[in-house]
This record gives sequence, C-alpha cells and structure tokens, in this order.
Amino acid sequence: MLLKQNEKADQTQQLASPRRRHLLAGSAVAMTAAGLAAFTRSAMAQAVASTVPAAKPLPAYVTWKDANAMIVHTSSTLETKRSAFGTSIITPTDQLYIRNNLPAPDASIIADRDGWAVSVEGVKNPRTLTVKDLKSMGLETMAMVLQCSGNGRGLFPTKPSGTPWQVGAAGCVVWSGVPVRAVVEALGGINERMPYMTGTGGEKLPEGIDPKSVMVERSVPVKAMADALLAWEMNGEPIPLAHGGPLRLIVPGYTGVNNVKYIKRLAFTAEQTDAAIQKTGYRISPPGQKGDPSHPSVWEMGPKSWINSPAPESGPLVAGPVQIKGVAFGGINAVKSVEVSVDGGKTWKQARLVGPDMGRYAWRQFVLPATLEPGSHTIACMVVDAEGNRQPEGRVENAGGYNNNSWRDHALTLSVV
Amino acid sequence: MLLKQNEKADQTQQLASPRRRHLLAGSAVAMTAAGLAAFTRSAMAQAVASTVPAAKPLPAYVTWKDANAMIVHTSSTLETKRSAFGTSIITPTDQLYIRNNLPAPDASIIADRDGWAVSVEGVKNPRTLTVKDLKSMGLETMAMVLQCSGNGRGLFPTKPSGTPWQVGAAGCVVWSGVPVRAVVEALGGINERMPYMTGTGGEKLPEGIDPKSVMVERSVPVKAMADALLAWEMNGEPIPLAHGGPLRLIVPGYTGVNNVKYIKRLAFTAEQTDAAIQKTGYRISPPGQKGDPSHPSVWEMGPKSWINSPAPESGPLVAGPVQIKGVAFGGINAVKSVEVSVDGGKTWKQARLVGPDMGRYAWRQFVLPATLEPGSHTIACMVVDAEGNRQPEGRVENAGGYNNNSWRDHALTLSVV
Repeated sequence: MLLKQNEKADQTQQLASPRRRHLLAGSAVAMTAAGLAAFTRSAMAQAVASTVPAAKPLPAYVTWKDANAMIVHTSSTLETKRSAFGTSIITPTDQLYIRNNLPAPDASIIADRDGWAVSVEGVKNPRTLTVKDLKSMGLETMAMVLQCSGNGRGLFPTKPSGTPWQVGAAGCVVWSGVPVRAVVEALGGINERMPYMTGTGGEKLPEGIDPKSVMVERSVPVKAMADALLAWEMNGEPIPLAHGGPLRLIVPGYTGVNNVKYIKRLAFTAEQTDAAIQKTGYRISPPGQKGDPSHPSVWEMGPKSWINSPAPESGPLVAGPVQIKGVAFGGINAVKSVEVSVDGGKTWKQARLVGPDMGRYAWRQFVLPATLEPGSHTIACMVVDAEGNRQPEGRVENAGGYNNNSWRDHALTLSVV
Repeated sequence: MLLKQNEKADQTQQLASPRRRHLLAGSAVAMTAAGLAAFTRSAMAQAVASTVPAAKPLPAYVTWKDANAMIVHTSSTLETKRSAFGTSIITPTDQLYIRNNLPAPDASIIADRDGWAVSVEGVKNPRTLTVKDLKSMGLETMAMVLQCSGNGRGLFPTKPSGTPWQVGAAGCVVWSGVPVRAVVEALGGINERMPYMTGTGGEKLPEGIDPKSVMVERSVPVKAMADALLAWEMNGEPIPLAHGGPLRLIVPGYTGVNNVKYIKRLAFTAEQTDAAIQKTGYRISPPGQKGDPSHPSVWEMGPKSWINSPAPESGPLVAGPVQIKGVAFGGINAVKSVEVSVDGGKTWKQARLVGPDMGRYAWRQFVLPATLEPGSHTIACMVVDAEGNRQPEGRVENAGGYNNNSWRDHALTLSVV
C-alpha cells in the first residue's frame, strides 16, 4: 500500500519531464528565499503522501539533481534509486550518485575553468599546467563505471559504519580529457623508481586541524596510469563542481575515491601518501580492526552485476512474462557474459547483452526474458569477465564494508501474485 | 569585442554548474509568476551585456534546457550552439535541439507513461498495444544521430524559407525500446504488398482545419523497419514530452521528421500517407518549385561531418598548436574515416577517431592536432563511410533547403592572430 502511494506521487511528478522536476525543486528554493516558504511547504506536503516518511530534500549545492531518482543519505552522500537506472548504458549526470569526503570547494573555482592548474611532479621536467594547456596536449574519451568503494555496504549483515549504500553508489559515465601518459611523455617521462601515482584534491581544508587527517590525497600503483585521464568533461558537459570539475583524475577500473576531484597535484612518488585517507582509510581490514598500511588498499574493482528491474521497490509483480534487466561490469576487465538465476542460484541461464559495447571499463546492460509463477522468487545475476573471472558468491568480510561484489548478497527476492 | 563580452557572461554563468543554470532560468520563470517580474528583469539585464542583442529566452515547456547551450529561433525551433558540443559522443538531453511541427501535446499524456497506446496495423493480427505491453515484448538500445532534415539550411546561399539551422539541429542520442520487428513478429508479420511503414503522431490538432494539412504522419520504406525501435527511453531517462515521450518511433539513419513523436499508430501500408507533411512537404524539390510526390522524399541521411572546435564564435585564435575537433556520421552507414583540411580543401590529413564506437548510426568524434600561423585559415572536414561513400563537396540545391551535407558549405574560416 505504501508502495502504491509512492507510485502515485511519482506519476504526478511525471506530468513534468524529468528535468522539469529539477526546475520545480529549484523554484521552490528560490521562492523560499523570496519569503514564500509557507506556499512552498504546502506544495511539498501535497507531493509527499502523508503516511510515507518524508524523503530528505536535495542539498543546496545539487538542487539540479533529479530528486525523484535519488536517495539522500546525507548532504554529501546521495544514491541513485535502483528503479531509476535505465537501459541506455550511460547514467545521466543528474541521476549520478554523490560521495564527497569533504564539502565541495567554493564555486568560484569554475568561474575560469581553463585557468585551473595542476602541478605535475615526479617527472623529468615537472611543470604546472592549466586546463587550457592540457587541452592542447591531447584528447581521449572513455566510458567508465564510477563506483564508490562502499557500494553494497548496506548488504553486509554486520552493518559496518558508513553509508549503507545498496547498489546506487555507481554509474557509467563518459569522461573526456587528456591521457595522463600524454602529459607524462610531454614532461620527459616518470623519474626512476616511482611505483605510485598520487593525486591531491583541491578541496578547501578546515582550519586548525592536521591537513593530513582530512585531505583527499590518494596513491594508486603507477600501472594505473596507462588508461588514466585528466578529465574536464563528463557526459558531454564540463564536469560540474559536485563531481570534481574543473579537472578530475580518472583512474578507470579503480573505486571512486581514487578518482581525485579538483585535482591540483599529480605526483609520481616512491611511497604511498601518508594522508589518513590512504594510510588508514579505505583498507580491507579484518572486521573489528582499524585500518593499517599492512591491509590491502581499496583500489581495483572486481567483477560485479545486479538487477535493476523488476525491483522490489516497485511493489508486487503480477505473474507472467517479465524482462529481467540489470548492469554488469568487470572492474578492470571487460565483460564476457552474464548469467541470471530465478531460483536463488540453483540454475542459471545466459542473459543477452543489450546496446553498444562502450569498452573495457564501461558496464553492459543485460536482459533475460522469464515467466514467473505466483510465489516468492529469488533472482540473482553473475558476471564473467574477459579473463574468465567469475563474480564471487560471497563477500570478503572487512571492517569498512568495502568492495562488496557478492552475487548472493545482491540477489533480490520478489513477491509474485 | 562583442565576442569577448559574450565570453565573460558565459564565465559568470559558469559559477554555477551547467544544470544549475537551468535552475536559475527556471526560478526566474517561477518568480515572474509570483509577481517578481521587476527583479527578474533586472537580473536578466545584468546577465546580458548591453551591446549584445538579447537572446530569446527558453520557451516555457523546455525551461529545463541549458539556456547557455541553445540558440532559440522560435518556441518550436531550438538549436545547439556549435561551442556546446563536447567530446563525450552523446548529446546531453538538456542540450539537444528541438524542432516540433506542432505544439507538444498536453503534459497529461506522460502522467501514465505505461498506459500510452499505439495501434499496430497492416499486420496479420492488428492490435493496440500499451507501453506496458511493449516493455514485455523485447528490449534494444541504440545510439543514433537525430538530425533535422533542414540542418545546414542556413548555409544555403539561396536562403530557403524555414529555420536557418547551421549545424546544431542534430545530436547523438541513446534510445531504448522494443525493436519494431519484434512487435511485428509477435503480431504474425506484415501483410503482403505493404512497401511502407507509416507512423502517426499523437499531437493535438487545431480544430476547424483539415487534419491532413497539419498532422504529423510520415511514411518510410518498409526496409527501415529492420533497425527501428518503439522507444520509451532516451539517454537513460524516460523520453521527455518535448522529445516525443511517452513513445517515439525511432528510424535510425532517417532524418528527424521520420522519427514520429507520441506515436499512436504504426501501420504497414500500400501507399505513402497523403498527409501534407509527406505528400508535398519534406521533398527534394527543384528551387522555386512546390513540393510534389514525384520529388524524392527526405528520408535517409547522407555522410556528413563538421568542426565544433575551434569555433569562430569563440573569437580570434592565438597562433600555435590547436586540436581541431568535430563530429562525423555516415547516415545509414558506419563511419570509416575522417579527413581534415586546413587550407580550404587543397590538402587533407586523416583525423583520429576519439572514444568508443557506438555503432553504425552513432556519430564519431574526431581530432586532428595542427599548428596554425597568424592569418586566415579555412578548415574543412570530410567523412568517408564504411561503404566508401565520401561526403560531397557540394550541396544538392532544393527549394526546402534539406539534406545539406556539403563539406565546402560546412568549412569554417578562422582568424588567427
């Protein structure tokens, strides 16, 4: 019944186009500012069914997101609803998740996008380059799954602390920028014995606190440079501030935190940074233990898939034919195939991959037609990557709830009437 | 100088993210409605440099478009600015052109998207199918260049009547829906001797006028069915009303008008429709003549390419290295290669194709690094399709200004200082 009411509210909002809804949300903000708060609250009350807990509104810095598509956990953690993922491969920017470790810098940094500068160090001829400089040095475009390290944390029965993401802290994004290797070549190559590529974010740090304890600075193995970009564009538009514009380091196949926003320093280094976010944060630590440099860092993504439709949030399903749809990616490898089970993993059928293949780091969308009888059904999916690696049945237990790619954890139990 | 001022206004607006700008535009509309017109006009006056003619505002039904990216010709004809085309292949929905032959139907038609119905006729078992029915019948996803038949009309020296589009009445869109052939198979196949596929749009027609004189009903050769879709999603979101949602006929490789919006009837027919838009409209008629069924209909697109950057609208270029970037597509065939000339077509160099290949009907983005000396340079590009067809040097003269894919007409003359 609750679900039905939600559906109805959704339909009312669909009178306007998806982006029209942003406008409405934005207008509400503007009208509040103009002293029309009472009207606004009344309109919002009508939009939210009285028996449904009110969803948190979009934070002020991203009122342009599609409110209907997002779950707002906190002002810095927004998840895409499972039911919002379409079948067009690319996740629209206004539906993409947000996870910011620090508040976004002041919007003045995108007043002059071409003027943003990054210091490139640990190369033969270190130099500070502006975005304008970078734009003259090369161009590459790549589709890539951007996924928060903690996506799927909400499926750990141990409930690790941190945002309880289900599947929506991920999206497939087209990035455009200059290959890092082209920049490195232009600066004479990497100095000897520098096994790490270290990116430093340009966030404004809080005062009176050790910068190393909060700053966003991440090191990845230097081999990740091969396909990395310094990107200024996503999904056809300049990268919005909330997603790291004017310039973001893109490290395909690596979890979100390694894709440093507002990058101001790109250094090839002998050691990993000693910033807390690297030293103790984002480590696969045994449950109950604090993060330690001896624990593996959260870097490469593993093969993973999940079902987007039918979704339990859409309410009970009527028996009959259904198209089971979802997404699958290989992390650092391309997708080879996807299998789907409608009996909780006892038997599997090969799904069909849908739409153009956008490359090794993109996700593929898959579909399997099925006929479901009344009753309860547990639907699971499992991807096999181009190297033959299979998405695992179980998760790797860890204190931070990172890297959950267990197919069993991601299985959905559907009620069919 | 005018250009400089424009740039400055753009930069100011870039303080907000691209979609934040929609919000601002939208808020202005809402505030006007609330009686704050004076404030709004003042804010708009500040945003528009006084010596620059004021751009037309976005029409009310598409205030969610990116005002900064669009040229508003009329309320039903909006063009993407050349400088807004990025290098991420897909054209974001909020930057895609609009060309509607009739005003969009009432927004109530997308209150219940799954309930929209299309009558399928000229098949063994004709049936009316809802979007919900169609969603259970199959799924395909395809990237396709959507291009207005008149894109490039503004480059005809004869100035044919109609919107003087330059290059921006086109975009590359990802569509998702059911293949028409799957629907036809499910309904027993096409009746014998039906050489045309005819789609009828659901626009609300003005009263007191012969419907045939204004209705949007288009016939294409039945072979176009092979890759056609009945689509409910574009670029990852339900198709907005302004772009033909809840359901649009997608005929890959055919000009925009053949991709019927709000499709309510899909018929396999013995003859082309006698609606004016088909019978006399959209014909390649000799200059000075009215359209006639004996003239070729505007159907398949030819190979075409153009340069997006550097763009003359961005002002004089400083001598030195530059990345020449643009888009190229083959129409009904895939792109094989693109050549670029910086001397007005005397000599050509092969450009590099950038980013994933999204299939036969998508466009490819290309780049050619060059070094430009001070002076005037005429830059041209030319695509060769997979069948070896070359983009022609000249246009086919015609009364309506359709199908301009002349590389010479599309060449840009740049001033380098």
